[in-house]
Amino acid sequence: MPIRVAVIGAGSVGFTRGMVRDILCVPELVDTEFRFTDISRHNLDMVYRLVNRDIQAARLPAKVTATTNRREALNGADYVFSFVRVGGLEAFATDVEIPLKYGVDQCVGDTLGPGGIMYAQRSIPVLLDFCRDISEAGAPGCLFLNYSNPMAMNTWACSQRGYGVRIIGLCHGVQGGHRQIADVLGLRQEDVDIIAAGINHQTWYISVKHKGRDLAGKLLDAFERHPEYRETEKVRIDMLRRFGYYSTESNGHLSEYVPWYRKRPNEIKKWISLKTWIHGETGGYLRVCVEGRKWFEHDFPNWMKAPPRTFRPEDRGSEHGSYIIEALETGRTYRGHFNVVNRGCITNLPADCIVEVPGYVDANGVSIPIVGDLPLGPAAVCSASVGVQRLSVEAAVRGDDLLLRQAMMMDPLTGAVCNPPEIWQMADEMLVAGEQWLPQYKKAIAAAKRRLARGPLIPTKDGYAGAARLPIKTVNEIARQRRIAAAPARPADRRRKRGKGT
Amino acid sequence: MPIRVAVIGAGSVGFTRGMVRDILCVPELVDTEFRFTDISRHNLDMVYRLVNRDIQAARLPAKVTATTNRREALNGADYVFSFVRVGGLEAFATDVEIPLKYGVDQCVGDTLGPGGIMYAQRSIPVLLDFCRDISEAGAPGCLFLNYSNPMAMNTWACSQRGYGVRIIGLCHGVQGGHRQIADVLGLRQEDVDIIAAGINHQTWYISVKHKGRDLAGKLLDAFERHPEYRETEKVRIDMLRRFGYYSTESNGHLSEYVPWYRKRPNEIKKWISLKTWIHGETGGYLRVCVEGRKWFEHDFPNWMKAPPRTFRPEDRGSEHGSYIIEALETGRTYRGHFNVVNRGCITNLPADCIVEVPGYVDANGVSIPIVGDLPLGPAAVCSASVGVQRLSVEAAVRGDDLLLRQAMMMDPLTGAVCNPPEIWQMADEMLVAGEQWLPQYKKAIAAAKRRLARGPLIPTKDGYAGAARLPIKTVNEIARQRRIAAAPARPADRRRKRGKGT
Amino acid sequence: MPIRVAVIGAGSVGFTRGMVRDILCVPELVDTEFRFTDISRHNLDMVYRLVNRDIQAARLPAKVTATTNRREALNGADYVFSFVRVGGLEAFATDVEIPLKYGVDQCVGDTLGPGGIMYAQRSIPVLLDFCRDISEAGAPGCLFLNYSNPMAMNTWACSQRGYGVRIIGLCHGVQGGHRQIADVLGLRQEDVDIIAAGINHQTWYISVKHKGRDLAGKLLDAFERHPEYRETEKVRIDMLRRFGYYSTESNGHLSEYVPWYRKRPNEIKKWISLKTWIHGETGGYLRVCVEGRKWFEHDFPNWMKAPPRTFRPEDRGSEHGSYIIEALETGRTYRGHFNVVNRGCITNLPADCIVEVPGYVDANGVSIPIVGDLPLGPAAVCSASVGVQRLSVEAAVRGDDLLLRQAMMMDPLTGAVCNPPEIWQMADEMLVAGEQWLPQYKKAIAAAKRRLARGPLIPTKDGYAGAARLPIKTVNEIARQRRIAAAPARPADRRRKRGKGT
Amino acid sequence: MPIRVAVIGAGSVGFTRGMVRDILCVPELVDTEFRFTDISRHNLDMVYRLVNRDIQAARLPAKVTATTNRREALNGADYVFSFVRVGGLEAFATDVEIPLKYGVDQCVGDTLGPGGIMYAQRSIPVLLDFCRDISEAGAPGCLFLNYSNPMAMNTWACSQRGYGVRIIGLCHGVQGGHRQIADVLGLRQEDVDIIAAGINHQTWYISVKHKGRDLAGKLLDAFERHPEYRETEKVRIDMLRRFGYYSTESNGHLSEYVPWYRKRPNEIKKWISLKTWIHGETGGYLRVCVEGRKWFEHDFPNWMKAPPRTFRPEDRGSEHGSYIIEALETGRTYRGHFNVVNRGCITNLPADCIVEVPGYVDANGVSIPIVGDLPLGPAAVCSASVGVQRLSVEAAVRGDDLLLRQAMMMDPLTGAVCNPPEIWQMADEMLVAGEQWLPQYKKAIAAAKRRLARGPLIPTKDGYAGAARLPIKTVNEIARQRRIAAAPARPADRRRKRGKGT
Repeated sequence: MPIRVAVIGAGSVGFTRGMVRDILCVPELVDTEFRFTDISRHNLDMVYRLVNRDIQAARLPAKVTATTNRREALNGADYVFSFVRVGGLEAFATDVEIPLKYGVDQCVGDTLGPGGIMYAQRSIPVLLDFCRDISEAGAPGCLFLNYSNPMAMNTWACSQRGYGVRIIGLCHGVQGGHRQIADVLGLRQEDVDIIAAGINHQTWYISVKHKGRDLAGKLLDAFERHPEYRETEKVRIDMLRRFGYYSTESNGHLSEYVPWYRKRPNEIKKWISLKTWIHGETGGYLRVCVEGRKWFEHDFPNWMKAPPRTFRPEDRGSEHGSYIIEALETGRTYRGHFNVVNRGCITNLPADCIVEVPGYVDANGVSIPIVGDLPLGPAAVCSASVGVQRLSVEAAVRGDDLLLRQAMMMDPLTGAVCNPPEIWQMADEMLVAGEQWLPQYKKAIAAAKRRLARGPLIPTKDGYAGAARLPIKTVNEIARQRRIAAAPARPADRRRKRGKGT
Repeated sequence: MPIRVAVIGAGSVGFTRGMVRDILCVPELVDTEFRFTDISRHNLDMVYRLVNRDIQAARLPAKVTATTNRREALNGADYVFSFVRVGGLEAFATDVEIPLKYGVDQCVGDTLGPGGIMYAQRSIPVLLDFCRDISEAGAPGCLFLNYSNPMAMNTWACSQRGYGVRIIGLCHGVQGGHRQIADVLGLRQEDVDIIAAGINHQTWYISVKHKGRDLAGKLLDAFERHPEYRETEKVRIDMLRRFGYYSTESNGHLSEYVPWYRKRPNEIKKWISLKTWIHGETGGYLRVCVEGRKWFEHDFPNWMKAPPRTFRPEDRGSEHGSYIIEALETGRTYRGHFNVVNRGCITNLPADCIVEVPGYVDANGVSIPIVGDLPLGPAAVCSASVGVQRLSVEAAVRGDDLLLRQAMMMDPLTGAVCNPPEIWQMADEMLVAGEQWLPQYKKAIAAAKRRLARGPLIPTKDGYAGAARLPIKTVNEIARQRRIAAAPARPADRRRKRGKGT
Repeated sequence: MPIRVAVIGAGSVGFTRGMVRDILCVPELVDTEFRFTDISRHNLDMVYRLVNRDIQAARLPAKVTATTNRREALNGADYVFSFVRVGGLEAFATDVEIPLKYGVDQCVGDTLGPGGIMYAQRSIPVLLDFCRDISEAGAPGCLFLNYSNPMAMNTWACSQRGYGVRIIGLCHGVQGGHRQIADVLGLRQEDVDIIAAGINHQTWYISVKHKGRDLAGKLLDAFERHPEYRETEKVRIDMLRRFGYYSTESNGHLSEYVPWYRKRPNEIKKWISLKTWIHGETGGYLRVCVEGRKWFEHDFPNWMKAPPRTFRPEDRGSEHGSYIIEALETGRTYRGHFNVVNRGCITNLPADCIVEVPGYVDANGVSIPIVGDLPLGPAAVCSASVGVQRLSVEAAVRGDDLLLRQAMMMDPLTGAVCNPPEIWQMADEMLVAGEQWLPQYKKAIAAAKRRLARGPLIPTKDGYAGAARLPIKTVNEIARQRRIAAAPARPADRRRKRGKGT
Repeated sequence: MPIRVAVIGAGSVGFTRGMVRDILCVPELVDTEFRFTDISRHNLDMVYRLVNRDIQAARLPAKVTATTNRREALNGADYVFSFVRVGGLEAFATDVEIPLKYGVDQCVGDTLGPGGIMYAQRSIPVLLDFCRDISEAGAPGCLFLNYSNPMAMNTWACSQRGYGVRIIGLCHGVQGGHRQIADVLGLRQEDVDIIAAGINHQTWYISVKHKGRDLAGKLLDAFERHPEYRETEKVRIDMLRRFGYYSTESNGHLSEYVPWYRKRPNEIKKWISLKTWIHGETGGYLRVCVEGRKWFEHDFPNWMKAPPRTFRPEDRGSEHGSYIIEALETGRTYRGHFNVVNRGCITNLPADCIVEVPGYVDANGVSIPIVGDLPLGPAAVCSASVGVQRLSVEAAVRGDDLLLRQAMMMDPLTGAVCNPPEIWQMADEMLVAGEQWLPQYKKAIAAAKRRLARGPLIPTKDGYAGAARLPIKTVNEIARQRRIAAAPARPADRRRKRGKGT
């Protein structure tokens, strides 16, 4: 019997097409039935047309349906993917812009920090709705594969209050750093064995081996000498220097989780690179998302004209999703890194938090090995974020703005930059700005409005661009850039760009 | 660089030859250096000659050395196997015979019960010596693969006090039941996915799937209808009936861990089969061991004349040892069931006990997934044994005979059969009988001797043969039986006989 | 504001009067408002009349009301006592008689064993109803003081699923043994400091000190020489001998929780005394309860004629209930031993089980100190019972007779006496006998009836009186005995008889 | 038999005299034998003369001896107090001054922050020596009552690696805030019931009750309106506002554990008061310690002339030490707040950290009740500090400067003020400055010297006085101030000054 795969937020064209391609590259899964759903009928139509065309062209038995009725899409589903971004770019802009006025200069702002915390407030109620629907309409034992950020907080809420739905949070962060480590050591990626452990976006390569020999001690020197990374990965390399382990997270993203690198405007540029947004640009991810949307609207007609996708083994990407399904359905063992409830896996992080750790998947299910203690320094760094996550998750679920404010106060970068009254005023502004996506905060938003109206207000740096901001490109500029980039891209870069890159 | 594999108790010819064969079937490991050691120079010579001859014949680069100097054998070893049986058959006989006088009718007596408890008292100090030597002489990170029984208690002591040596306890019990399950379901073993979890010799198939569908609910009916198993596996089937899960353990062995099947002499035969010893014969394992030794001494000359062993993939056995080494050395993932410290793997058994659970091995090491809760009934059965094990391990390490007696009192079968004064007198007898192997009990043995000499003694059933005892075969009888058996054996049976069968 | 104390099962005249007296002995609590409720209007009237008369006579401001409407009684209650015995003596008789036919010779049968397990099946649904009512109708933070047996299982179910109601299980077992220990040591009870820990009815004096000096090592000798206890407490002394610690539990009760003392009919009398029922008489507690009820019915008219109770400090009993209330209301520190969820208090028992441990009460609430590890032997004994309790609690809540049967199989005495088919048939008989009190087992009881009707049945010892049974006294005999006993009773004995004695 | 109390660091005259007085106020303890030891013969003589004179004058049977031989003092001791300050004021000055150059403006600097971290590096090896001596020379079960700061880190190291010595860390912080809470509520302190829980110096009043009614919700308003505290306790009140619970810690001390109040030099004065040092003055505790030493040297002759101390109940102070001893020796229950290994007491802090929680003491020993979860916000604040403590303790024990630097990086205030290179250079300077007290860092100090000598160095604010520094008073100024203060002091203030005030 073919499996049924539902995709919520299927309008995320890139993610959805990639996932379909990856699954249909597996011979046993070519008859998969895909159920797309999205709140945007327009986006849904586009992705449906694209994917359907590809399948027809490849003459595969797979089926696709699309509906804006979520329950219908979930009905009898064996697997559910979520690619949603609650609030979209409109809300995302406030996650970046409001903190910037208070001096909190985020590069991405979708994981921790005031931006990530507010993103969780919007996302968690929606994802819990997905869980309720899955528990009621999905096939027994249906597995929820979540790609929606903030990964750790969303997965935490769903694991704890998601009506018993099994959920795994997925991110490809571990693969990217793995490739870099192989690069600096002059080895092939497949010859370097790694164990990464921590929390999403703050996972650490705690074991790096080549033919059984531990190479962790050689990494700092190798990275410091690498001509590209010593420029683009300064924060990561500094963290490696101070804490002894390389982080999975990109330079820009990592820099915003800790108090040391982005608190002084005049020092930010020393720690980042403006070569690509991911290395630390102020609001960098927001910029590329805005540009990406513009470009997609402009370029969509060409997509339908382009040759349809093929489904050969060599076309398959490296996202975990399809490999997990393959392992469960065929019994072929897959090892990846997954986001799951800790439950003692990392012995010196709390049992209830969401960790990112190795997992083995086969016909017996998803097995999460006991990792043991994280090294003390990395554990301390992760613990600080876990404290923020727990406050933020509880705030989102209860609609308790006092906990929300505490989450922001405990955020390492925010705590280093702001004082308590500033944090509270920032929280007020963000609650009001997100009103339409924060039904659980009705009362708190009303009170925040009153406070903001009544004043007096702490002055903020309105219009401040942050330490390292680049202008948003026009469609013409994007087109030009893409022509330049098209020529020499290495496969690795292609993969990095294809994903969300974080 | 070739790996170095030390074998303590290499005189266990069957085990040692099997292990060498299994390793040399792996192409990357054909240059392995084997270091045999044993306290018996005689046995060591025999196995050395056999193995060396096989390697020469196969023209493999592997090397073998043999020495009675254990430290020498361990020097620089990457892997160490222990096949020792401390006290040998002489001590083993007392483990069976003395309890029998008190009505405790054991089939094997090497795992739990008075026999297994005393076996642990002899073995633990010796195995801790091995650990100390490994920690001092072995290669850094040397892995100790223990096959010596009582598995759970030995591995417990070594994990807790073994000078930091990494140890895995290995037993092939899970494979045997897996084959039976496939049999009764009419499926191929490789198509049935199983998760077994519990403690060694009381592990339960908690998940039995075929193409993702759970078949656990069909097992009772299928076993009850199976023409062979319904005769030979009555205790296992009854446990399945009462507790809902099939046990890895053989009928005879299982029957001696619980209070229900062997406490009334007149009922024992209803629950066992005398077809082979493993199905429940009184002192069955002792009998086959005695016969095996006789036969080996008689037959050894023929072994050297027989054609040498070959090392083709199809010759390889199913013991976990070589597969673990292969996975660690080559990175090819292996999944087996291992005995390790619980540490939260089975969430409703104590964190410090030794559990038998699935493990994944690759170049990253041995990964033990979190299993979660055992079903309540099986957990209660295992807990009772864990209590006995803990008392027994502590007794062995401290040389504390009060704890030893408590271990016997808490043993479910002993507690069902004897009253406290009987248990104490039995403990006295067993301590005195094992004096030469129990240096840690010097004082307690002296006191026991005084008590036994002084009397009055509780009368015991001296000379009682138990409910289901068979005579020991002569060499001629064994020879005749082997001629009969040689003809039609199925591969599965061959595998079963090759191992220690428990 | 006066406190409100509701009493469910107030018809338990002795308990209710004692509790009222104890509370009204506290000066700050003389205005307490008591709310009595019971399913028997008749019993309720009797206790109401007695208590009201006492209060009037003492001219205290306390108030009493009585109603068969439980919700009404609970409305706004600050404290709730439960004295109910679900099924009463009618059901209790089957708890004792049916197992006896299968050779399970219980002395009490209300805690563990087939009797205690079935008692839990009747009680737990009823107590959970109490909890729901308390959570809805009681004052905020209302404290539920449970005296209903089986204490550990009932408190377990209520703690886990009792709608968030705070519950403490109370038993005076610890005090009795404390007095004995002081006796044998020749010390005053108030000079002997003790820490008792374990599970209800299997709690152990793990620390016994006099002026800071540990006397635990002297107990065995002292008890063995004590002229009375060496006759009446043989099982307790034997357990002290084997396990190193004295048990809180009476001789007869203790003997039925373990496999060693009551499994051979011809040995039971060696371990017990028939001096009073509590030392081990077959069905002893059932007998005295039946006699007590007869006597009460006969004697009630005299009670109303007797002089009313007084409420002087020296009248106060030693049950924990009133002391807890006093401590919470006045802030005066009280130390007692309470039954609460373990949560890490005894580190080597499961976190979710109910332990009996020291507690301190004052205006801050009830504080349960961390005890640490139980000694290994006592921990193993308690663990075995905890396994039975967990199965039994889950069975009661789910109405799952497979778990119920597993609970009986794992019961140490039952496991030592019966084989699995016997246990299952006994369970069938007990389910059918208790039908009216076991609504959750509707389906299982129907199936049991079919099996019992269809046969064939395993023969049982119908009409077997057990090893040590005494005839039920007539009212005249009771009267004569009471006249004899009235004269010389020591205060300690009076206290013992006043309570439920277990 | 009289108890023996050893005092290490007895030269801390104020502490030692207070402790002696408190013990000798207990009638049962008037014959206590005190053993004073110190590394300074001079200080030891002074305190010996003072205390001996007091005892003689009161005609008590107590005895005092003094020796610089620590082992001699500890021989047979039942209780050991430590009042040592390793490195004295000389080292303390560097704990304050060096961080100040890097912008880390500490008020006390002896608990967390760079100052507290370095203090732990000096203290832990010395305290572990005390433990070894106690384990070898003290009476069996000797109890170590530690007053040496940094309390949490010192107690952590001793609990984990202190040769099995029982240790309790003592601080009177909880009492001070308790008094304030009663003040603002207009109640008597003895009528307000509190539970405080957290880690030393960051303990929170999680339950505040009056006659059973919870008043926690009224505290913010009451503190904001209090004429004195709204000026002197601004940080505490702000934390109460943001986190919902009042902290035990003084305003100045609390302000240095979190990132929000002392990171901007121009805002510090808004959050503190210069009325007394404890409210936030830069280096305030260092100043009063320096002044105190000067004054003592100047004033000692007067002390001997002053009337000797009396030992009446009303003379007794409120430090926990004597009450603990009284409770253990007499059985009178004492409730205080103690620093002990968590072990699950606070369920959402790590099991291995040191928590400050309620404890009950009586003849059974010290009982630490299970507190349960801290509220989420306070738990997050404490967790951040626990991470720093763990790194610092491990660094001190291993002499691992990488962990030491990580501790400083994770320190909330340091992380908010400095960047990583600054933190490392600051660590270099502090290691070099403390060389004589840091034998475990020999290699790291040599490397730090080379780095500092080689440069280039990050410029620092040499000579910077911090945001709120007061000049050190001369002896004449102190004298004048004391004359003024002598007149109107309230008992509460007297108590506060008597202690160490932190």
